[in-house]
Amino acid sequence: MDLCSLSVKDFIKRVAEKSPTPGGGAVGAVAAALAAALGAMVSNLTIGKKGYEDVESQMEACLEIFGNEMSYLCDLVNKDVQAFDQVMAAYRLPKNSEEEKAVRTVKIQQALKTAIEVPFDLARRCKNVIVNVERLAKWGNLNAISDAESAAHLLYAVYYVAKANVMINMKSLKDPRYCNWIKEEMDHLEKQIEASYRRILEVIKKRNG
Amino acid sequence: MDLCSLSVKDFIKRVAEKSPTPGGGAVGAVAAALAAALGAMVSNLTIGKKGYEDVESQMEACLEIFGNEMSYLCDLVNKDVQAFDQVMAAYRLPKNSEEEKAVRTVKIQQALKTAIEVPFDLARRCKNVIVNVERLAKWGNLNAISDAESAAHLLYAVYYVAKANVMINMKSLKDPRYCNWIKEEMDHLEKQIEASYRRILEVIKKRNG
Repeated sequence: MDLCSLSVKDFIKRVAEKSPTPGGGAVGAVAAALAAALGAMVSNLTIGKKGYEDVESQMEACLEIFGNEMSYLCDLVNKDVQAFDQVMAAYRLPKNSEEEKAVRTVKIQQALKTAIEVPFDLARRCKNVIVNVERLAKWGNLNAISDAESAAHLLYAVYYVAKANVMINMKSLKDPRYCNWIKEEMDHLEKQIEASYRRILEVIKKRNG
Repeated sequence: MDLCSLSVKDFIKRVAEKSPTPGGGAVGAVAAALAAALGAMVSNLTIGKKGYEDVESQMEACLEIFGNEMSYLCDLVNKDVQAFDQVMAAYRLPKNSEEEKAVRTVKIQQALKTAIEVPFDLARRCKNVIVNVERLAKWGNLNAISDAESAAHLLYAVYYVAKANVMINMKSLKDPRYCNWIKEEMDHLEKQIEASYRRILEVIKKRNG
């Protein structure tokens, strides 16, 4: 089922239930989608606004990116739940014979990689959205600047949500080379997101006077 | 209309539209409700779990608080939109005569206070939820610790979303005493939330080994 077709109220209730899914990763993806939507709103409120003619094409480009990310992140909500459910299913496989044990071990490791790749993807999306929120912070409608700022705060947080979910699954993964690669990529994303976030807050402070 | 009765997908689309509402404040309230729901989930996954018998009553207490906050925050989503719409309506009042001007000024100031009080309330809710997430971080089911951490990251961010929305409305408010009172209260909340957030990350780091 598509969790994003649930009402906001029911989705919240579904998270609260005594079941590990939807959990932090899925909630993070919704929060990132909401941040992208705030970005789209600020773009929309800048396009066609008097005094912002020079940045019209920039804002059109932003709007398209935010729209794509909104859809992508909604899909990621469901992917996160599926990935976790697959890990659980792999752990429940029989382990009576040596052969069964071997199959179970392989399946667990495969499932863990998917469970890492979904929040890793979420971290990448956060980076893609926040660099475009930076364009809004610089050139977007000043009346909606607090909405651009709100998006930035959320995206910065969701990166750390993604990181927590990458790390917890990495604990059980027995592939040091893969783990190192993910860690390096995450570090790189973290630096970019952190830098963009700082610049956003600075430029908003300046524009607010 | 109740915005939380929209599907997650439609709510996201509604945010993205070329209209200032629902904006950052409403999105912040949804994100905080999702964080409270993660708190409820971790409480649920701790209650009845072997090895966690000693914290059962603590977790029951947390669960009740998270449940109340989830409902309260959903209501706040709608209140935020109504408050902003009232500010806009006040600005649109006629100003042809001196009397009309005077009425308009009073109405704008009244509406701005409500538009400040809603995100101020959101900041208070963040504090209430994060101090209970701290109890989960300390005593909750270790298997769900990344979900408690995810909730903490989001709540910390939503406080700053709330602050941005308080500040932007404060700009136009002509009541220095009221503004100072709100600023002092916000500073106090910020210190409490910051401290709780730091303690949560520290205790999770320790428990993760």
